[in-house]
Amino acid sequence: MKAHALTTPLDLIALDADDTLWHNEHLYLATHDKFKQLLRQYQPEAWIEPRLNAIEIRNLQHFGYGIKGFTLSMIETAIELSEGRVSGAEIQTIIEFGREMLRAPIELLAGAAETVAQLAASHKLMLITKGDLLDQESKIARSGLGDYFSLIEVVSEKDIDTYKRLITKHGIPPERFLMVGNSLKSDILPVLALGGQAVYIPYRTTWSHERVAEEDLDSTQYITISDIGQLPAILEN
Amino acid sequence: MKAHALTTPLDLIALDADDTLWHNEHLYLATHDKFKQLLRQYQPEAWIEPRLNAIEIRNLQHFGYGIKGFTLSMIETAIELSEGRVSGAEIQTIIEFGREMLRAPIELLAGAAETVAQLAASHKLMLITKGDLLDQESKIARSGLGDYFSLIEVVSEKDIDTYKRLITKHGIPPERFLMVGNSLKSDILPVLALGGQAVYIPYRTTWSHERVAEEDLDSTQYITISDIGQLPAILEN
Repeated sequence: MKAHALTTPLDLIALDADDTLWHNEHLYLATHDKFKQLLRQYQPEAWIEPRLNAIEIRNLQHFGYGIKGFTLSMIETAIELSEGRVSGAEIQTIIEFGREMLRAPIELLAGAAETVAQLAASHKLMLITKGDLLDQESKIARSGLGDYFSLIEVVSEKDIDTYKRLITKHGIPPERFLMVGNSLKSDILPVLALGGQAVYIPYRTTWSHERVAEEDLDSTQYITISDIGQLPAILEN
Repeated sequence: MKAHALTTPLDLIALDADDTLWHNEHLYLATHDKFKQLLRQYQPEAWIEPRLNAIEIRNLQHFGYGIKGFTLSMIETAIELSEGRVSGAEIQTIIEFGREMLRAPIELLAGAAETVAQLAASHKLMLITKGDLLDQESKIARSGLGDYFSLIEVVSEKDIDTYKRLITKHGIPPERFLMVGNSLKSDILPVLALGGQAVYIPYRTTWSHERVAEEDLDSTQYITISDIGQLPAILEN
């Protein structure tokens, strides 16, 4: 834990969901691997990953975050890297990759269920997540954690405007708002910029699109913990 | 207008967006036509539409509403109806159909802008729409009508549970809640079932999935108007 401490009391604690409460990035990594296997007859494996990433990030402005847009990006990448030779059966396989991701069981991070239950006993909790609406709602329902959250917000982007809109809508002064998540770009920096507080819990992998440059970071402004189970203790200090 | 009259005062007027405030179904119809043109080398044109509809409805449970899921359904239909012979270039064309739909300009229905402005002067307004989050947000922003709505809700399904959650969240008694929209299935029947009030404005076309059987309808329970411009007059009666 960094020297900086939280200022209490807090009116609202907001938590990110994907890779903060439950594992998510592993689904994308596993699908990237299957996608590379599928396409290696067309191109060297080393070319596939960077091209998929570039197409995915280019498509965010049209498709937004989530598995449906990712699936469309895989299809476009397959067409491009195969120079149009990819077969109908292979495209169908890619759509099945997407459908399998949507159906994948929810695996909570160690300590997430206990921590959320403990925090909910003393604080009002909000879940803030981005991605496809139906998919995120389905994951929240399947996680069994939905009832601990007074407020659930599925948003299309987690930037300063989004957080400003949310805390204004719920009448929360920024300094009494705490955001907890695994993405410096989406969970920590925009909240600090608004005068809110933030706890960073790095996940074992971070999607390149969510990485931020060192110079944008002032780690004295937020608290880093390695495990969500450490969260209640910080709030008591 | 039917004999039934609205009971006033109302605490909240909610409006559907697609095909109630702006044209939407025409985009799907135009894309269906382009899709049939693309596939008619593989199958008789009359086979294409029913198969696309069936795959689209089957996929709603995985993909939800919206253009991204529709695009994936077009791709699956193309693979199936071409028996896998559809080319990479043709699949890319289908993805472009989806991207064009996402970029299509917003065409407001005649009278929609004036009516919304007039209603907002006397009532609290909510916009309730289903579809892809980013796409719906983008359409609301581009429509220029967003500022008239105190509350904007993009939902994954418009059923009794959804409406119940929304009016409870905002503390509205059902009988003081009015929903206005073009879908009997999504805008009218679930609201009546909760004890709310509803105004039905049929659009020139209704997607088959949104149609309801005659026996499910009791048209004495809601008001039908032919034009959104008639809405303010009903509220004054």
